[in-house]
Amino acid sequence: MNDITSLGESGVNRSRAEELMTANGLEAIVATTPENVHYVLGSSLRATNWTMQIYALLPRDPSLRPCLIIPTNRLGVIAQMGITSADLYVYSDFFVEGSVEGKPSTPDIDLFYSLLQSVKTYAGPVEALEAAAADLGLKGQPIGVDEMRITPDLLSRFAEGLPGGQALPAYKLFRQIRQIKTPFELERLRRSAALNESIEQQLIDLIAAGVHERELAEHYRLTVMKGGGTPAMTAVGAGPRSALPLIENYFRTIERGDQVRFDLCMQLDGYWGDTGRTAVLGEPTPWMTRHFEAVLSGWKEALDLIRPGVKASDVFQAAVARVQKEGIPHYRRQHVGHAIGLELYDDITLAPGDHRTLETGMVLCVEVPYYELGAGGFQIEDTVVVTADGFEFLTHMERKLFVK
Amino acid sequence: MNDITSLGESGVNRSRAEELMTANGLEAIVATTPENVHYVLGSSLRATNWTMQIYALLPRDPSLRPCLIIPTNRLGVIAQMGITSADLYVYSDFFVEGSVEGKPSTPDIDLFYSLLQSVKTYAGPVEALEAAAADLGLKGQPIGVDEMRITPDLLSRFAEGLPGGQALPAYKLFRQIRQIKTPFELERLRRSAALNESIEQQLIDLIAAGVHERELAEHYRLTVMKGGGTPAMTAVGAGPRSALPLIENYFRTIERGDQVRFDLCMQLDGYWGDTGRTAVLGEPTPWMTRHFEAVLSGWKEALDLIRPGVKASDVFQAAVARVQKEGIPHYRRQHVGHAIGLELYDDITLAPGDHRTLETGMVLCVEVPYYELGAGGFQIEDTVVVTADGFEFLTHMERKLFVK
Repeated sequence: MNDITSLGESGVNRSRAEELMTANGLEAIVATTPENVHYVLGSSLRATNWTMQIYALLPRDPSLRPCLIIPTNRLGVIAQMGITSADLYVYSDFFVEGSVEGKPSTPDIDLFYSLLQSVKTYAGPVEALEAAAADLGLKGQPIGVDEMRITPDLLSRFAEGLPGGQALPAYKLFRQIRQIKTPFELERLRRSAALNESIEQQLIDLIAAGVHERELAEHYRLTVMKGGGTPAMTAVGAGPRSALPLIENYFRTIERGDQVRFDLCMQLDGYWGDTGRTAVLGEPTPWMTRHFEAVLSGWKEALDLIRPGVKASDVFQAAVARVQKEGIPHYRRQHVGHAIGLELYDDITLAPGDHRTLETGMVLCVEVPYYELGAGGFQIEDTVVVTADGFEFLTHMERKLFVK
Repeated sequence: MNDITSLGESGVNRSRAEELMTANGLEAIVATTPENVHYVLGSSLRATNWTMQIYALLPRDPSLRPCLIIPTNRLGVIAQMGITSADLYVYSDFFVEGSVEGKPSTPDIDLFYSLLQSVKTYAGPVEALEAAAADLGLKGQPIGVDEMRITPDLLSRFAEGLPGGQALPAYKLFRQIRQIKTPFELERLRRSAALNESIEQQLIDLIAAGVHERELAEHYRLTVMKGGGTPAMTAVGAGPRSALPLIENYFRTIERGDQVRFDLCMQLDGYWGDTGRTAVLGEPTPWMTRHFEAVLSGWKEALDLIRPGVKASDVFQAAVARVQKEGIPHYRRQHVGHAIGLELYDDITLAPGDHRTLETGMVLCVEVPYYELGAGGFQIEDTVVVTADGFEFLTHMERKLFVK
């Protein structure tokens, strides 16, 4: 049961999880959202609809293995992925016949077959979750539940067996644990950032008169897919459309003199990449240069402050003040960056209302965009990990107004 | 306010919605999941994380327009998509400067600018939702809420203002409304099925000795993307791996004599496609032929029964009995098909426990797969719409064991 070495296959920060569960008086927490389940497991599982329930139980005690609660039909995927980081508790009927004995097979089929033979099937997800908790010796102990992706009726039923009939909502607690990235997670965030920015550089290289925004967006999405990732928001805006913050549709053919703003989001192995740059086809106007320099100054100001112990809100205030001073006196912004990880917006935002302090191991996207309708938009966004003496870049593209 | 013509832009079955809300004593229902919001709106909106709330309020009275509750930063996307099927209620800060007056612009930017000028911003999603209900004259009236994608604390706060302090859970009610597809939805389901099966045919054409499962899966995913869709579960299993039900990883190079099972899922404009076929490279063995013929007989039996008024469970029983009779006496299965639409598994399953009757306008994937570990797997899956006198296929590929 307690094969500690295989715990390394997921990115969970067990010591931080233990500390925060202890502080909240909990013996375990149950992940229900795909991101938190991925966190416990180290791999993504798809659910086919909202009623399909997939949970991962993470015990406070780091010597106990996590448990995964899945419908029986997911066992084959578990076998293909070679997931061994959790004990399995399955529910609902699913029929697969045959035997691998003496037959042509592959290791994933052998594992699938042995799982089908060995797992006990429970009536439903709550029964499976209760069995997992009981096997860990946690029956009647306080357990928190990520409240975002469990159906309310099942949450009520599970809570009945908990002290006081209550399950502490644990979505925010999972996010708090996930604030400090583990080496497993940093490696994935590095790979995701590298794929994302390599394609962003390709888009800049492709900028030319007559190229349509849509061609660039499609190149991005297909190249992300070819690289094994999943593309998401693909902001490619040329000329006046560079002033649109989120971009999901593409209308403009690039012309000489256009500025082009990129803000590109994708996932690789569950971890997000989010990078932004601005380019101009032809000579930038003085207006473009002044505004880009102002935004770049604010971004540098933010980075100058980033180190353990600094308040997120102080980074925000300093960056905005710097942009205002350097050329955009009316500059306003709701944040100048956000944590990134298994969610595009992980916990901690460089925003006026977030007074928490930065810590070593946090990964942040630092961005100081400016959007002016009827004129244009500017973006610079990079990803950094907070280190003991400041930060280290996960992105490495040139940080300038690209001139084509 | 009541521009009825623009309601046609979404696929909502307003008369069925009215009927089912009346039956449940509700004056409106609130969509919170992406699928139900898409249903009300006719377009998809992305949320960046679980705390970001996007709701669509659908009134019972078909002469009232739906309302959309979004964070301010989604206004630009609404403008780009040209969404006019709902009145907008926005919340939270988001800063965009400038003016389009006398400036180079495009229609989506002009619309974005006019929305920024005209919308009133509320403190949060609950305040925006309450304002929408009040503007429709529904203050204090019974309202149901799709319980799956609203944070529990916000649901409690909204429910406080409802009769008895309760919001009826409405996720299943939305699914029940969505059972009967509108012409808008059928057109999208047809296009999704057509894209999906055209690529499935390409995969069959690509089967040859030395081709890796992964090449076929990647061809599928990239071609779906190029066609404007989003690929999902891509089951491509060759030889012994054809017996794996869900397939997410690829290990085998196709050899002569291999059977290859496909079960391919994707979305186009929010609507799912899900089609399956089986092929053999070389001469099928008698075992392959017998098992495929048994499965095909069961699938035909299911289709023979499909018409309005027939129980879903009766279709299931007949199909399974037929497979057992025609060559797989030990055949077991949990269902032989499922409704499809904005969710891969929409409401109604051709399963032993689903005793509801089929109705005109339901869209069903009919599938009778067989998985035998150590031997192989077979799949045939097509999409049909139930018509007054039976059904019509949305898929048109040959229904046979493909021999390459």
